[in-house]
Amino acid sequence: MPTYHIEMLEGRTVEQKKKLVAEITRVSVEVLGGSPESVDVLITDVKRENWSTGGVLWSERS
Amino acid sequence: MPTYHIEMLEGRTVEQKKKLVAEITRVSVEVLGGSPESVDVLITDVKRENWSTGGVLWSERS
Amino acid sequence: MPTYHIEMLEGRTVEQKKKLVAEITRVSVEVLGGSPESVDVLITDVKRENWSTGGVLWSERS
Amino acid sequence: MPTYHIEMLEGRTVEQKKKLVAEITRVSVEVLGGSPESVDVLITDVKRENWSTGGVLWSERS
Amino acid sequence: MPTYHIEMLEGRTVEQKKKLVAEITRVSVEVLGGSPESVDVLITDVKRENWSTGGVLWSERS
Amino acid sequence: MPTYHIEMLEGRTVEQKKKLVAEITRVSVEVLGGSPESVDVLITDVKRENWSTGGVLWSERS
Repeated sequence: MPTYHIEMLEGRTVEQKKKLVAEITRVSVEVLGGSPESVDVLITDVKRENWSTGGVLWSERS
Repeated sequence: MPTYHIEMLEGRTVEQKKKLVAEITRVSVEVLGGSPESVDVLITDVKRENWSTGGVLWSERS
Repeated sequence: MPTYHIEMLEGRTVEQKKKLVAEITRVSVEVLGGSPESVDVLITDVKRENWSTGGVLWSERS
Repeated sequence: MPTYHIEMLEGRTVEQKKKLVAEITRVSVEVLGGSPESVDVLITDVKRENWSTGGVLWSERS
Repeated sequence: MPTYHIEMLEGRTVEQKKKLVAEITRVSVEVLGGSPESVDVLITDVKRENWSTGGVLWSERS
Repeated sequence: MPTYHIEMLEGRTVEQKKKLVAEITRVSVEVLGGSPESVDVLITDVKRENWSTGGVLWSERS
């Protein structure tokens, strides 16, 4: 039942996502208990023009 | 003023969304009080490659 | 699998929450399909000093 | 380290986003302290068919 | 209608929150337009044991 | 810069949280790259009266 939301800059491959959600789920079950089927992971791909650090959009960084 | 966020797999029609937000708003006013205009509902359409259950992306399920 | 997040000012009773999540789940299954067991609803009780509308915290309103 | 999420109807220009994140970051540092580099701002552009107020999607409003 | 969510470590005063939400709302109207009354700001006070950077909870840092 | 939000029923110990955020951060760097310091993890402890599955609050389950 634990639910994970991951926000990351867009551009990751489906292979990376597959590996990431499998590992997150494994770690969650290991530390918190419960069954893998009770773990949901949702990914948000964020455009560079929609994320800023230090007041500057990532699309503006070289 | 209650605010609802709905995450669901992409693919629902606008007709379904219209019906869903109308019903959620009606139920909210009925149970919590307040005016319909104070209720916001936001929907996030999630791609199958961005949601996993049990460590497996929905795009990988047959 | 649809997941609902509800943000509302704190102060609602458990009876209201019970009614609200039952109704949201019923409406979700009716409009989107799926089984009731696939529907999660999470409530966030927000303190009045943590929500502002029009630039004024609700704790400052009379 | 404060993290800001902004949900707004889609259609804003990158110029508006640049100005908005710069101002939010400046205000955050001014009021809460910390360095600008510790402030993250994430924007979500919401489609009109995914936001309802008063039970009506914004795509249905004239 | 823009909605702002702010996550920050707990410990800020109500005075800081009042100033922050007023400034965020002012900046939002200035850059995006709309009326102040259409702007909602929600704050989440996060405990130090619930936020980690670099894999270490803030409650564990000296 | 990837940001993880974890929602789970309240009751986990600080020891479990320490282990969980360390492992999530390690897995994130391994799969997505970047430095550990760029990874933030935020935990939300959800009360049983604020989470329902199948239309029933977890506080009502025996």
